[in-house]
Amino acid sequence: MAFAYSIEKCPKSIDLSHHLSDVGNARQVSPLKGLFKYIKTPGIISMAGGVPDPAYFPFETLYADTLIKDSFRPGPAESQSPLSWFWNLFRGSEKVQTDRITIPKYTANPEDPNLAVALQYGTATGLVPLQKFIQEFVTKVYQPAYSDFTTIVHVGNTDGWSRAVMTLCNPGDGILTEEWTYPSACAGARPLGMHVVSVKIDDEGMSSEDLEQILSTWDEEARGMKRPHVMYTVPCGQNPTGSNMGSKRKTEIYNLCVKYDIIIVEDDPYYFMQEGEYTPKHLRLASGKAKAMSAQNTENEFLKGLVPSYLRMDYQGRVIRLDTFSKTIAPGSRLGWFTCNPLFAERFERQGETTTQAPSGFSQVLVTQLLTQQWGYSGYIRWLKGLQYQYTLRRDTILDYFAEEFNVSQEPGSELWNGHVVHVCYAKSTRAPFMKEKSALKPLISYVPPRAGMFIWLKVHLDSITKYTSLDEDDETTEKKIWVALAERGLLISPGWIFAANTEEEALSNEGHFRISFSNVEAEVMKKAVGILSSVLHEFSA
Amino acid sequence: MAFAYSIEKCPKSIDLSHHLSDVGNARQVSPLKGLFKYIKTPGIISMAGGVPDPAYFPFETLYADTLIKDSFRPGPAESQSPLSWFWNLFRGSEKVQTDRITIPKYTANPEDPNLAVALQYGTATGLVPLQKFIQEFVTKVYQPAYSDFTTIVHVGNTDGWSRAVMTLCNPGDGILTEEWTYPSACAGARPLGMHVVSVKIDDEGMSSEDLEQILSTWDEEARGMKRPHVMYTVPCGQNPTGSNMGSKRKTEIYNLCVKYDIIIVEDDPYYFMQEGEYTPKHLRLASGKAKAMSAQNTENEFLKGLVPSYLRMDYQGRVIRLDTFSKTIAPGSRLGWFTCNPLFAERFERQGETTTQAPSGFSQVLVTQLLTQQWGYSGYIRWLKGLQYQYTLRRDTILDYFAEEFNVSQEPGSELWNGHVVHVCYAKSTRAPFMKEKSALKPLISYVPPRAGMFIWLKVHLDSITKYTSLDEDDETTEKKIWVALAERGLLISPGWIFAANTEEEALSNEGHFRISFSNVEAEVMKKAVGILSSVLHEFSA
Repeated sequence: MAFAYSIEKCPKSIDLSHHLSDVGNARQVSPLKGLFKYIKTPGIISMAGGVPDPAYFPFETLYADTLIKDSFRPGPAESQSPLSWFWNLFRGSEKVQTDRITIPKYTANPEDPNLAVALQYGTATGLVPLQKFIQEFVTKVYQPAYSDFTTIVHVGNTDGWSRAVMTLCNPGDGILTEEWTYPSACAGARPLGMHVVSVKIDDEGMSSEDLEQILSTWDEEARGMKRPHVMYTVPCGQNPTGSNMGSKRKTEIYNLCVKYDIIIVEDDPYYFMQEGEYTPKHLRLASGKAKAMSAQNTENEFLKGLVPSYLRMDYQGRVIRLDTFSKTIAPGSRLGWFTCNPLFAERFERQGETTTQAPSGFSQVLVTQLLTQQWGYSGYIRWLKGLQYQYTLRRDTILDYFAEEFNVSQEPGSELWNGHVVHVCYAKSTRAPFMKEKSALKPLISYVPPRAGMFIWLKVHLDSITKYTSLDEDDETTEKKIWVALAERGLLISPGWIFAANTEEEALSNEGHFRISFSNVEAEVMKKAVGILSSVLHEFSA
Repeated sequence: MAFAYSIEKCPKSIDLSHHLSDVGNARQVSPLKGLFKYIKTPGIISMAGGVPDPAYFPFETLYADTLIKDSFRPGPAESQSPLSWFWNLFRGSEKVQTDRITIPKYTANPEDPNLAVALQYGTATGLVPLQKFIQEFVTKVYQPAYSDFTTIVHVGNTDGWSRAVMTLCNPGDGILTEEWTYPSACAGARPLGMHVVSVKIDDEGMSSEDLEQILSTWDEEARGMKRPHVMYTVPCGQNPTGSNMGSKRKTEIYNLCVKYDIIIVEDDPYYFMQEGEYTPKHLRLASGKAKAMSAQNTENEFLKGLVPSYLRMDYQGRVIRLDTFSKTIAPGSRLGWFTCNPLFAERFERQGETTTQAPSGFSQVLVTQLLTQQWGYSGYIRWLKGLQYQYTLRRDTILDYFAEEFNVSQEPGSELWNGHVVHVCYAKSTRAPFMKEKSALKPLISYVPPRAGMFIWLKVHLDSITKYTSLDEDDETTEKKIWVALAERGLLISPGWIFAANTEEEALSNEGHFRISFSNVEAEVMKKAVGILSSVLHEFSA
């Protein structure tokens, strides 16, 4: 079963209750459960809840001007400057096209979005029309391989992951994750007593080879813990490396998780930012017309062009997928959802009741109105197509600047990266005229062009850094020294150490990485940033 | 030191770090901490964060029509029907007076509320102008007794309590609380491995006498746990009993907490719903003019009329106060804050970063704009005065209906209630003409008129329930039977068992309580509800 995601849809998820932690098991049945039966009784006088009269909500009507669904082009025009994405970003200009959302406190039909409901206490499952939209979206876009998958809102993927850890892990448990990963995922799990077990990565993300090696040779005594039964992974636009895992690798990993009985928590905020292969500028411009044509693809073609979620191959229900509106609508919405088997979903609901309760009613009603009334499912897909192209343009633009600032050479990778192409940036003698011919051939940094997400992961070639030995009396790593130098020259990027799953100091002192985010600066700023980076690295290797 | 809250302000909180749980202690320093130093550097190019360009936020402008601060009268007019609160509740009528809030995506001054900031990733401390407002509000309204108190936002008091439990308690710890309490507080703590230790209550809430008894005689072995070091309490508008604790009792309890080194978590959502003593209808109408005069009190007089928070006597920093906008603005805002010592606040901030992150940006920016631009501090106080009177009218109205439906007699309480007056409701022979003279004298229910909050706590006199013995073959308690009968007759109220801190079945089977909420039904519905209650109770005792 090499491609599990193409199997027949399974009727139901399997019983995975043995994965629940003590806390997850103990999450009580809601003490109010007995009330629910009567709450919906027509005409019943409800004086059970401690709920204010909506007359006392000071918000009478909410309005929003929202961008139209096709605000951003889904691909290049036939003749278009590669920087036109920049001019497309209307900042208070008259170019913006909006529709008006109106949400009154009371509506004639109480099913219509209204503030009397949205701003009242709500259930941990969220507003009904939002639940429906999310269920439809997951069904059509991710196509889970089993039928009783369940969706339930949370207040963002960090909350989702935190709830998953508490529901699944007991203190002392290990959690499998990529060797470089989202810092908050570890920072959230460690205080709860969990250990992070790092798995090597290549340019597709987590290595199935290394994963099997770890699991098949697990020595409980030597490791000081049982074999992990939970995995945290960002398979798409991996943070920080920007890799994008294809369906073959996902199937390999999924099958290993079946074999070793592991729950996969798929944190996937960058799913709709799959930028694909990077084509160098001169080749890209030549193929502009073909790309313009392909931008006209249908909704189905667009979705087929995205790598499948783990849900697609999850015939057992062992995937907890975390989705968020942070990257597709706005981080401040603090709104996202779990997709998982109904057993876990019920536990998450109980947990929500005694922690965050429902997500913000303002967020829920505004996002719901935008998605259901203004855009609809197809409109949202069109919006996502526009976003995908915007991020592709940004990714291409910054990599073009790397090609200008360095001598970039495409070279085969070694070890785990065998068979993959790495972009190696050599010093340019023109930048540092004082450099000798030999040093001009030094590789300074290398990267794999990201295929999804917001980040470029730079590996610094420490052996080219000649300042290294001259400064090693102090306690700082070379990585830290370069990072401080960059900041002092006006460029703030993320130092590699914060992404390390394995935080042993010795290991980190031999590494040099930076994560550079291309999501929120304009083309000219990118150019300046790559210039600062180049300048500092040239100095450090001079 | 009988009234600790009147002592000189202490310079600082004392060191309470030994109260941190393993999780609280382990909450790591933010992995991004090192970045913060440079983030505010003017002109620095920031490519560190995984943040979207605000140009991609589909919300361009947000507007809200909000009620003016004096929408609700702060007290009776000189001549006013007691039911006029009902007509004041404008539901889509033209009576409503609103102002318009406008929040654009970009503002010339980036300090002004704007969506580019509010809808972006934010810190776990929340929007700066909201932080400032909250700090000013706490300083002026609660007047903490030490100077380095700190405020930090959360997503509602249930979240606040959940974070406090994790930060302070290790599994196996006991938590002191009122014998009847907010169900979610227990439902959140128990799955984390905590035990609830119930303290008796009287008509002022938690009994300091019983608390001292429990603490001074604590037997670790017999109890199976160490003496508790954390207390969860709702001192004002206690849920479910509606009692309001005065400053003398608070000081007694605070001093015991000093003596036994206990952290007090003060969950206080009903603070601005202090309705005071209930005066029966005929006496109230006579005193209408005096009340009308007193409604003209100043801001300071209004605040002085509220019982002080535990913060006011907290000269050591051992109080964690939980405030929420759920009852004063709207539950759907999912926005509130901690006030506590800086050590705990820092731990809550770290915890926020790896769970909920910031509260919803929509909630934050709309509430901030309302509080800071539209109303201001004094305007918000005026709004709270209006709310207080609205809840007072509701409380009075429903108690008036009890007086109509039952023969209500004010009687001295016994045991812990010694010295307090209890309202005992006797059967009315007019309602049940088939009843003999004797049974007409049966006490059916009793209550203490609530002095704050949203609830009346009814005690059922089980010995008057003649149906009791005839139905006791099944497993249901009489409480449950009456509750089902009420629901089937069209009245949904909360059964007492869900509020029990002590959940031992045997204890519960001898109790009969209901919590009735008067916060969200109109006068005529209240009348109908009390009628159903009366009718069912008369039947059960016939």
